[in-house]
Amino acid sequence: MERLDELKSEIRAAYDREPLDLLVKDVQLVDVYSAEIVATNIGIKNGRVVTISSTLPVQEPSAVIDGEHKYAIPGLIDAHVHIETTLLTPPALAEVIVPRGTTTMLIDPMEISNVAGLDGLLAFISGIEDLPYRILIEVSSRVPTAPGLETTGGALGVADTERLLDLDAAVSLGELDPAKIDTLSDEHLLKIIAAHKRGKIANGHAIGLFGSGLQAYAAAGLNDDHECVTFDELRARLALGMGVMVREGSSERNLDALISGVVEHGTDTRNLMFCTDDKHTSDIRAEGHINYNVNRAIELGLDPMEAIRMATLNTAQHFHIEHLLGSIAPGRCADFILSPSIDHIEPERVFLGGELAAQGGRLVASLPRIDYPDNLRHTVKLHHKLADDDFVIRSKGDSIRARVIDLIPGQIVNNAIEATLAVKDGTVVPDIEHDVLPMFCVERYGKNGNIGRALIHGFGLKKGAIAGSVSHDHHNIVVVGVDRHDMRVAVEALAEAQGGFLVVDDGAVQAILSLPLCGLMSEEKTEVVDRELAEVRKAAQSLGCPLDTPFMALSFVSLPTVPALGLTDLGLIDVLNHRIVPLPIE
Amino acid sequence: MERLDELKSEIRAAYDREPLDLLVKDVQLVDVYSAEIVATNIGIKNGRVVTISSTLPVQEPSAVIDGEHKYAIPGLIDAHVHIETTLLTPPALAEVIVPRGTTTMLIDPMEISNVAGLDGLLAFISGIEDLPYRILIEVSSRVPTAPGLETTGGALGVADTERLLDLDAAVSLGELDPAKIDTLSDEHLLKIIAAHKRGKIANGHAIGLFGSGLQAYAAAGLNDDHECVTFDELRARLALGMGVMVREGSSERNLDALISGVVEHGTDTRNLMFCTDDKHTSDIRAEGHINYNVNRAIELGLDPMEAIRMATLNTAQHFHIEHLLGSIAPGRCADFILSPSIDHIEPERVFLGGELAAQGGRLVASLPRIDYPDNLRHTVKLHHKLADDDFVIRSKGDSIRARVIDLIPGQIVNNAIEATLAVKDGTVVPDIEHDVLPMFCVERYGKNGNIGRALIHGFGLKKGAIAGSVSHDHHNIVVVGVDRHDMRVAVEALAEAQGGFLVVDDGAVQAILSLPLCGLMSEEKTEVVDRELAEVRKAAQSLGCPLDTPFMALSFVSLPTVPALGLTDLGLIDVLNHRIVPLPIE
Repeated sequence: MERLDELKSEIRAAYDREPLDLLVKDVQLVDVYSAEIVATNIGIKNGRVVTISSTLPVQEPSAVIDGEHKYAIPGLIDAHVHIETTLLTPPALAEVIVPRGTTTMLIDPMEISNVAGLDGLLAFISGIEDLPYRILIEVSSRVPTAPGLETTGGALGVADTERLLDLDAAVSLGELDPAKIDTLSDEHLLKIIAAHKRGKIANGHAIGLFGSGLQAYAAAGLNDDHECVTFDELRARLALGMGVMVREGSSERNLDALISGVVEHGTDTRNLMFCTDDKHTSDIRAEGHINYNVNRAIELGLDPMEAIRMATLNTAQHFHIEHLLGSIAPGRCADFILSPSIDHIEPERVFLGGELAAQGGRLVASLPRIDYPDNLRHTVKLHHKLADDDFVIRSKGDSIRARVIDLIPGQIVNNAIEATLAVKDGTVVPDIEHDVLPMFCVERYGKNGNIGRALIHGFGLKKGAIAGSVSHDHHNIVVVGVDRHDMRVAVEALAEAQGGFLVVDDGAVQAILSLPLCGLMSEEKTEVVDRELAEVRKAAQSLGCPLDTPFMALSFVSLPTVPALGLTDLGLIDVLNHRIVPLPIE
Repeated sequence: MERLDELKSEIRAAYDREPLDLLVKDVQLVDVYSAEIVATNIGIKNGRVVTISSTLPVQEPSAVIDGEHKYAIPGLIDAHVHIETTLLTPPALAEVIVPRGTTTMLIDPMEISNVAGLDGLLAFISGIEDLPYRILIEVSSRVPTAPGLETTGGALGVADTERLLDLDAAVSLGELDPAKIDTLSDEHLLKIIAAHKRGKIANGHAIGLFGSGLQAYAAAGLNDDHECVTFDELRARLALGMGVMVREGSSERNLDALISGVVEHGTDTRNLMFCTDDKHTSDIRAEGHINYNVNRAIELGLDPMEAIRMATLNTAQHFHIEHLLGSIAPGRCADFILSPSIDHIEPERVFLGGELAAQGGRLVASLPRIDYPDNLRHTVKLHHKLADDDFVIRSKGDSIRARVIDLIPGQIVNNAIEATLAVKDGTVVPDIEHDVLPMFCVERYGKNGNIGRALIHGFGLKKGAIAGSVSHDHHNIVVVGVDRHDMRVAVEALAEAQGGFLVVDDGAVQAILSLPLCGLMSEEKTEVVDRELAEVRKAAQSLGCPLDTPFMALSFVSLPTVPALGLTDLGLIDVLNHRIVPLPIE
């Protein structure tokens, strides 16, 4: 009966029969429905907007805030984000995103699900309703991503997915890749059907698709795409009834190309949204979050009302939650920003459920203390004790002609190249001069103790080893190094820390960022995580690594679904052919 | 597994790996997403659109239709309609609406529910999937409309409503009147909560609301209104985040006023839709259905694309079914019109689920034979045998000063007036000269045999009686007449016919339109129903009735929720005070 009683008091307050909890007086309300700016007041009860009226109530509100004629803009929505990329827990993330005006995150918790499965995911989201922003779930559709080519901690089958889709917090089936459509995978098509059956949508990931592949993808029931790089891609998706999430993340930066095209062609923006997908907290702090997308789009010439709609109403309508979010109107959650301008959003004050959550760029809401359970905090289990000799690649003869993964700095794809290495005492010798080093992927869920082996070009280490437990999407431990003992020490130290990024040299840990939550996230605040991340990067660079973000490179080279090659615990993966391939060229 | 197999073949067809069922070549597709006209071809499989492509498939389609460069427009949606008003069964109605381009009706089956309850409603909708148009359900929220003031055949409580909302065909909670919000009715608020809990919306009926009443109504979670008469009302609702259904029915004609305002003010149409609410088949045949709304809006200066969106995409988005309906795009039902123009829609050909359903103004789809069960076909049960003297109003003395219902021709509201009538032998004498006649409402569900009594001005009968079993929303039998014996004969003949409209004179039935399905609908075709309706009207007029539509007047004067007075089986209702009042003025 709780919601009934709440609703009654909201109605009474709207009738002016009982006091509002809060009246925000004198705002310029951005009405995303009629695309008008309205001078009015916002009345709030139980965290919901209940009145939008220029008439002041007779009943004295419990609190009154002067809106100072600022623009009241609906709270911004990130339409698609992998929250794990921030390396922060949801409470710690609040300090980064809420002061920038983001009040709702539609998260696809793919990484957590791969590590900890259904129970872990349910544990992860158990405290989200106490956060000073809203988390809604795009139920991860591919856990594991590449069945048969990797060992994961968790898996979400059709029944698990249905159970998750039934949650109030679930808004969609999470991004599904075209391969599942191309191969007519029963499991994944059943998941789409399950989402639609519940009146929920299915998110796409239509990377590079055109022509009949795109037609089939849309026909399969995928309702959007966040992988558009060109305006032509965007237009092709809109024409097939797919929503397009214009993405601006840390490495994938698509906004300028897409919005420039939209502005140039006068494209209708009704089916366009904004997302970050993957954006590091340092970038969010430096340039902004969804507010950055909105402001950049306006700079590129998009009408501010259209840009704001892309971050609010459009997303809410697309996800069938417009009756709850995406506007400032009676019945909706009282999530909004006060900004001195709409040509450039500045979230001077951010309200979440009618409470002031951030002001002047700082979080003022109190953060919940979430005690994550053991199944999230102890996810790294080595199957058996390791030896230095686990970190060698064995071969016969004096030399080996082998497949090598060639990193492309700043990209998640890589090249497949070949190299000849010396073999000594039956093991392949790292070629420091030509930067061809051994890399290992150690199964870390205590299931089988698999170790996958590969050779990689691009990390540039002259000595020591670097290792991480973030390795998409299986998140086993990956390690690259010159010295077998250092590599063993690195993996053991990571297991001891329950995950993270670290650098080992001379048999000792030089720097570490611990990520004990699923081996993916820290429980520290953003300042601590950023500092430790800088330290561990610097330590890697001091070993000779030329990359700006060596641990991101490490985390993506493990992907069995991004070409050309990937390394899982089962071995080297030829991505385009979906199969494990041997290291030696026969 | 059936849907899975279908989906697989749809995907294969989209990939051009197996033949399309149908290719409609060379159309000018009205893309309601990007608001563009696109020269292309529509590929269809299993009743769904699977390709929109200018490239022809390699696999020979099973059938090819030449679109002759006509405009392909998504099938039109009526956003709110009481199907019972047409007096036809859903199959018979197909011949009237489908050739006019309507492919989806969002029906609020309030009348059937009041007569036959949950089981009756479930029986009524059991065959709808075989119709050549789609019926989706706005689950009636007020059954009965006025608890305690009327006897109905059925009632839908909270649990029944939840069960109905769980149906795939249910898209919303049906229109709720402001009185339920004003009085904070637990039952009705729980129904709103139940709809939102399921991700479904709640339809409004915000007749005449402004100010705090409207604020409270929106805050209660009502998501739209179809009762706007003025542009100011429309604008006030949009500003509160409510959708507005622009209604053009038989008697309620709001389109010109609303759309003129929209055009004049350049109002954003995104949250606007079209509906008919109640429109008689004779009017539909004379001027059109939703195609009339679209064309009239264009005549008034609305951009054709906006007018078409109001009848398609906007409605689908509002009801959270945009992934299935409202556009011509992969994954959506293949429901569309081919029209030679978009400035004036002419549905030359109408496709439903990829099948040609109508052509040149005539239905070509075959109609399902629906055998309605007994609980829908035998709903009129008199509680006891009637006598002539049941149809008198008793009084003492020589005269009576009494309340009188004063009909207003063409409106559903009425005035409360007073009159003095002679009393003879203890019964009130009808005053033919001043047109004040007795009227009775006879309970017809066999529950209690109640007879409500009133006096009414406006029917103008000089002799005989007229009676009907359509009497909103309780649908008991109502009869007005000069002669008590004729009235008894009329009621008994209606019971015998299981409902309808009829005229009795000299103790014999002069004309009858039988409506045996729930006492509301005929099982005949529209031509038969129209002819019989004309005959029964003419017969009423031959008794002296000056009204164009006497049986509509009869059906609305029974409403206990439309001011000033209403007559139910429990007696004369003072609508604004929600109570039964005596006939005599004390």
